[in-house]
Amino acid sequence: MKLVRFGNLGQEKIAVNIDGKNYDVSAFGGDYNEAFFAEGRLAALADYIAANRDQLKEIPAEARIGAPFARPSKIVCIGLNYKDHAAETGAAIPEEPIIFLKSTTSLVGPYDEVMIPKDAVKTDWEVEFGIVIGKKASYVTEEEALDYIAGYVLHNDVSERSYQLERGGTWDKGKGCDTFGPMGPYLTTKDEIEDINNVDLWLTVNGKTFQKGSTSNLIFSVAYTVAYVSQFMTLLPGDVISTGTPAGVGLGFNPPIYLKAGDVIELGATGLGSQKQTVIAYKK
Amino acid sequence: MKLVRFGNLGQEKIAVNIDGKNYDVSAFGGDYNEAFFAEGRLAALADYIAANRDQLKEIPAEARIGAPFARPSKIVCIGLNYKDHAAETGAAIPEEPIIFLKSTTSLVGPYDEVMIPKDAVKTDWEVEFGIVIGKKASYVTEEEALDYIAGYVLHNDVSERSYQLERGGTWDKGKGCDTFGPMGPYLTTKDEIEDINNVDLWLTVNGKTFQKGSTSNLIFSVAYTVAYVSQFMTLLPGDVISTGTPAGVGLGFNPPIYLKAGDVIELGATGLGSQKQTVIAYKK
Repeated sequence: MKLVRFGNLGQEKIAVNIDGKNYDVSAFGGDYNEAFFAEGRLAALADYIAANRDQLKEIPAEARIGAPFARPSKIVCIGLNYKDHAAETGAAIPEEPIIFLKSTTSLVGPYDEVMIPKDAVKTDWEVEFGIVIGKKASYVTEEEALDYIAGYVLHNDVSERSYQLERGGTWDKGKGCDTFGPMGPYLTTKDEIEDINNVDLWLTVNGKTFQKGSTSNLIFSVAYTVAYVSQFMTLLPGDVISTGTPAGVGLGFNPPIYLKAGDVIELGATGLGSQKQTVIAYKK
Repeated sequence: MKLVRFGNLGQEKIAVNIDGKNYDVSAFGGDYNEAFFAEGRLAALADYIAANRDQLKEIPAEARIGAPFARPSKIVCIGLNYKDHAAETGAAIPEEPIIFLKSTTSLVGPYDEVMIPKDAVKTDWEVEFGIVIGKKASYVTEEEALDYIAGYVLHNDVSERSYQLERGGTWDKGKGCDTFGPMGPYLTTKDEIEDINNVDLWLTVNGKTFQKGSTSNLIFSVAYTVAYVSQFMTLLPGDVISTGTPAGVGLGFNPPIYLKAGDVIELGATGLGSQKQTVIAYKK
């Protein structure tokens, strides 16, 4: 299944994507949130869709597409998880996963505008393969880790490099600005991704390709990452782990290339759909 | 007012502390969560209490006291915000606030057990003065910052130093373990704290005093901190900013002193009550 949410930010209704079209399933009730995943309602939703397939209505053509799940308890990000990206930033290959947390207030839909923070000048892109947790995970092993996953999501881990790297403290400062977390267009359930270790990722800015990678080049695999993070904090149903970005971010160029108002970012991943964001200047 | 929650973890009901006794106000409805603060229900609760003062029942004597608010969207922590603590850890005085995020799954009540993570050996204490946000705050100024605060809370920012400092990546790795965020016993509304720049903090382990500080020694004040954090991420009603810890943590001793199963931590702050936790070894 491909889970979709549509409507105004904070008021989204639930939908599913079938053969490229989005169908309203709000009559099923609830939201794609912690309770939905914890209560195993994915299976019930599949039954509901099978029973009501002919009656389902497409969502309005003009509807905004939101992030495909409600605000999670946390968005855990893995840093420098592709060798080529570690190299371009001048960092050493990490011996174990680097963890940081992205404020969940950054979460937006896949086609929403990305806003450059006030007076910021080093806003950058990062296409990422995101994991959505399906059940509470604490101290799980690598072998059992996939059982704890509901599905996957495309994520643009937008980053303000000056806040992240030049203002003291942890990376969290440059990762959680409003609009810095476009996710979607859908959550693809895990059964629909044939090989999570072979997902292609790409990102363009103004039509020019900057990132082209594959999860086959992850330093730490999806299963390893879920198991690893669960040793440090309990993952709740609906939580997201974003697995890091391949080479080609703006910071890696000499001189660096950063986003400016009017730029158009497009990104995608095998089985996870694509996103498109217009960059805008700060506005109150 | 002093807001209290009681009952089993995840199923807490609301109460208020009046003259040292906790009264059930669950008939008022709702929880102390984002909606409660966003909708300005603090004033309505005060009216409800005034109208029903004689009918309010004390909570059961055996009831567990929970954290005094529902799981917030985020717990933002400020690092090295007291000069004496920066000195004891060997760190320079920060030029601007250090921000990190604490996984909200760490949140527990003030008298709950603190569990040492599996195989961890450097679990440490940190008494802190916490700010609870009352309304959505984005790019607020220092002058207006206090308007965005609902109240204050005592916080033991429990930290596993080996995860925080020796495992690569950001501090977040050592801050978000389960039971690492005891808060309470109550949220004291801001009108009840006479001078936030003069709140005494203390912490003992097994009866021996380790921390004794005052918010008068904060490098970055409460108002400055709220304004500062709001430049990097939007603060939602119910969110917590923990302002950092004064000197006297286990890491600062030579050799360092860390928590072990059976230790008893007690801590308190002027106007915010006191906490008491027994440390236990990891259990599934």
